[in-house]
Amino acid sequence: MKTLILNKSAVKDLLQMPDVIKVVEEAFGAFGEGKANMPPKSYLVVERGDFRAMPAVIPGAAGIKWVNVHPQNPSRGLPTIMAVIVYSDPETGYPLAIMDATDITAYRTGATAAIASKYLARSDPRTLGIIGAGRQAYTQLLAHLELFNFEQIRVFDRTQSSSERLVNSFPGYPLKECSLEEAAASDIVCTQTPSRVPVLKNELVLKGTHINALGADAEGKEELEPAILRRAVVVVDDLRQASGAGEINVPISKGLYTTDEVYANLAEIVTGKKPGRTDRDAVTVFDSTGLAIEDIATARLIYEKARQGGAYISIDLV
Amino acid sequence: MKTLILNKSAVKDLLQMPDVIKVVEEAFGAFGEGKANMPPKSYLVVERGDFRAMPAVIPGAAGIKWVNVHPQNPSRGLPTIMAVIVYSDPETGYPLAIMDATDITAYRTGATAAIASKYLARSDPRTLGIIGAGRQAYTQLLAHLELFNFEQIRVFDRTQSSSERLVNSFPGYPLKECSLEEAAASDIVCTQTPSRVPVLKNELVLKGTHINALGADAEGKEELEPAILRRAVVVVDDLRQASGAGEINVPISKGLYTTDEVYANLAEIVTGKKPGRTDRDAVTVFDSTGLAIEDIATARLIYEKARQGGAYISIDLV
Repeated sequence: MKTLILNKSAVKDLLQMPDVIKVVEEAFGAFGEGKANMPPKSYLVVERGDFRAMPAVIPGAAGIKWVNVHPQNPSRGLPTIMAVIVYSDPETGYPLAIMDATDITAYRTGATAAIASKYLARSDPRTLGIIGAGRQAYTQLLAHLELFNFEQIRVFDRTQSSSERLVNSFPGYPLKECSLEEAAASDIVCTQTPSRVPVLKNELVLKGTHINALGADAEGKEELEPAILRRAVVVVDDLRQASGAGEINVPISKGLYTTDEVYANLAEIVTGKKPGRTDRDAVTVFDSTGLAIEDIATARLIYEKARQGGAYISIDLV
Repeated sequence: MKTLILNKSAVKDLLQMPDVIKVVEEAFGAFGEGKANMPPKSYLVVERGDFRAMPAVIPGAAGIKWVNVHPQNPSRGLPTIMAVIVYSDPETGYPLAIMDATDITAYRTGATAAIASKYLARSDPRTLGIIGAGRQAYTQLLAHLELFNFEQIRVFDRTQSSSERLVNSFPGYPLKECSLEEAAASDIVCTQTPSRVPVLKNELVLKGTHINALGADAEGKEELEPAILRRAVVVVDDLRQASGAGEINVPISKGLYTTDEVYANLAEIVTGKKPGRTDRDAVTVFDSTGLAIEDIATARLIYEKARQGGAYISIDLV
């Protein structure tokens, strides 16, 4: 047996958003049917950041993502977040591949939000609002462009150079820079800021809007005014993770929101156990914290593609 | 930045037991002083076995071991246990190395037991009893031979070919095959069986004996008659892990032993917060479940040696 080593450029070459959307949706389906499993993410806090261990098994695949968040890295010329997946055969435990998972993380997060939009947004969304134009905004856009045809895509970032760069990266698509207010007044709104105070106020959110809240991924992070959650139909990726580290974590800790108010998790929606949007005028919120099943589903896709051929390093690792 | 890929043979070439004993003891020291940290091992159960995620940070090093236990593997020509470590820079999160950790696991387990023997056995042990002559017995012997000069080493295994093979693997040392009774009547006794019913009875244990109980590493496993624990000064590697999966787990679940009866953890002994053996006639037991700090300390050793030179694969992984 051999272990494939797939580095950043190999993974990037093999990542295609339509495939990622497909396998991530299948993973949520399997999870909803009890055919996938993952223990809670575990955090290892170090002086300058933290590491997260994210193991999961889905049908035919198992593995773990080991991902760090080190906010001071950019000053050293390194990305804040780097991730590696050990991809294993669930039948024997054999490590079939080691792969970079930095782009996998970005792609699967975009794919998951677009899947949530498919079930929770109005069926004919015309406008997409992007709040926060950093790295994660690119894959949000890539994924949503696969599933929807927007008349206008509105981009807001506090740093103008960031929104400019994003707009220029999608020539041929109807992107434009705009104010926070205009971005918020869209059929689908994706928030991906590192904020710890709500950037999106309730009064800016029109009826019928679907919001993907992606920024909150650790205790103390918050992007939406809690009144939005109380008004909305809220769907989480995982209730335990969302309560501790997702968009709902701060409102819960302040007593402004309770887990009982959460309508469903995404797996229940994907498997049809609970309907998605039923009321054209409802505000819906998807609280995304990122699940290990999304990573392992995407890793499986990459591994299967790599096995079909290519000049990859293959070694006797164990 | 580059990531080193260190496969099984590279790691094996770099592993030296005296070094492993040194760095593992240092890691326990750091852990006792609050300078090392690890969340609890997390288990991912799959149809034919399980995976364990073991992250840790020690001074200057962080990482995670991903290790499987698949009991049916030997029938497929694969080892039951395979392990990989992602070794990371705690300052930036960068994955400095990916390495096979199968031999690291065996070496650090041997080293930890020998460290426990150093503090808990009588100062002049003359005899070593080995109960269970499988894979793990080799590194128990290697480690104990570094720290002690035995007049006799007594080996018992239910399968005679196993004990024979172990005895023949250490020519020049005073090993001999013997009965369970004779092995048990030694100054230091190491048990490393996969048993779920006690193999070592209380009546076989002489006063002054130190026992390293290594076999129990999952719920339901048990090697020692509970009367031994009640009679002994018991030291664990980690109270939470030992209560759930170590030698004390079954007696606790049956109400025959309580965590209050545990004397100390190994870090407290190594840092001198609690004395080791004080009574020449006491029976002492070290309950080893295996800690992530042991793995990461050994991975650091291997990484530092590999960096000093050698023909290793080095790639742009992330």
